[in-house]
Amino acid sequence: MLTKSLQQHMQQRSIAMLNRLGVTLTPQEQNNIEVVELGLGEVERTGLQIVVYVNTDRYCAKELIMLPRQTCPEHKHPPIGSDPGKMETFRCRWGTVWLYVEGQPTPNIQAHIPAGSENYYTVMHQVDLHPGDQYTIPPDTLHWFQSGDEGALVSEFSSTSRDEFDLFTDPRIKRIVTVVED
Amino acid sequence: MLTKSLQQHMQQRSIAMLNRLGVTLTPQEQNNIEVVELGLGEVERTGLQIVVYVNTDRYCAKELIMLPRQTCPEHKHPPIGSDPGKMETFRCRWGTVWLYVEGQPTPNIQAHIPAGSENYYTVMHQVDLHPGDQYTIPPDTLHWFQSGDEGALVSEFSSTSRDEFDLFTDPRIKRIVTVVED
Repeated sequence: MLTKSLQQHMQQRSIAMLNRLGVTLTPQEQNNIEVVELGLGEVERTGLQIVVYVNTDRYCAKELIMLPRQTCPEHKHPPIGSDPGKMETFRCRWGTVWLYVEGQPTPNIQAHIPAGSENYYTVMHQVDLHPGDQYTIPPDTLHWFQSGDEGALVSEFSSTSRDEFDLFTDPRIKRIVTVVED
Repeated sequence: MLTKSLQQHMQQRSIAMLNRLGVTLTPQEQNNIEVVELGLGEVERTGLQIVVYVNTDRYCAKELIMLPRQTCPEHKHPPIGSDPGKMETFRCRWGTVWLYVEGQPTPNIQAHIPAGSENYYTVMHQVDLHPGDQYTIPPDTLHWFQSGDEGALVSEFSSTSRDEFDLFTDPRIKRIVTVVED
């Protein structure tokens, strides 16, 4: 659940970052920045902000705007009908992102797992993404990510996005955001 | 035909623009900037520079770097087997781009059609793209574009890219670039 005023606050912080980095949005895109409040009531810690540039039945492109140490929690994109599941490429544009994927666990990971949610973070193979670095996540595989102390801007290139089918490890999470009046 | 020294010169100009705009490439990506010399021997007038971030069997993302008044000549992306043809979204990041697509011809277009090639520019419906503006081109439809007096940076999001199948209106054009020693 996201209040209108918190939504606007997070949108304004996102716009400020984009302005600082020289990324131009139309007024309509600014109004439509998605504040992904996942039902945990802690969007500044667990959540992110998304600009969807285009999402067709063939491809999708988004900008992911992350506040300092904000975490997108562990999830995967399962097959849907004839679609093998969303495949996505993260390209870091600014800041630092630590991405965690299936594979050999990295000792002493950089991210801070949100306290109280430790049970819902299970893949620990760390990929460091600095500006210019990118990584492609295969369909139907678990992943999560957290930005560094400055926050981060990440471009996401992918196959068609169907967020409502995302499977989160944490059963408390709801992907579809509800905005309510204050 | 593109000489090694001209390739390097165009790559350096492209890198300078990206640096100015805060777009970071890895050293390998810088070396791999594609200078699209189309066989007309006038790449600064007819051609463009491309960074391919990712090209999978599902989606593709590129950065198109255009010098002042550089033109990508008229072409289309035809169906290939079960693929209906490449669908692509151009998003202007910096500068101005005039995109021409099928439809009602625009009187007094802004682009300057390269002299001597007038016969090979047939679609004249102008779409103005300034930073933050984007336009999606359906598969198998003719289009061409030219940057304004400052040049332009355009992000391209698309289905899978198979450049070798592009069909150009001008029969003199060769899409596959050959680089030769000076």
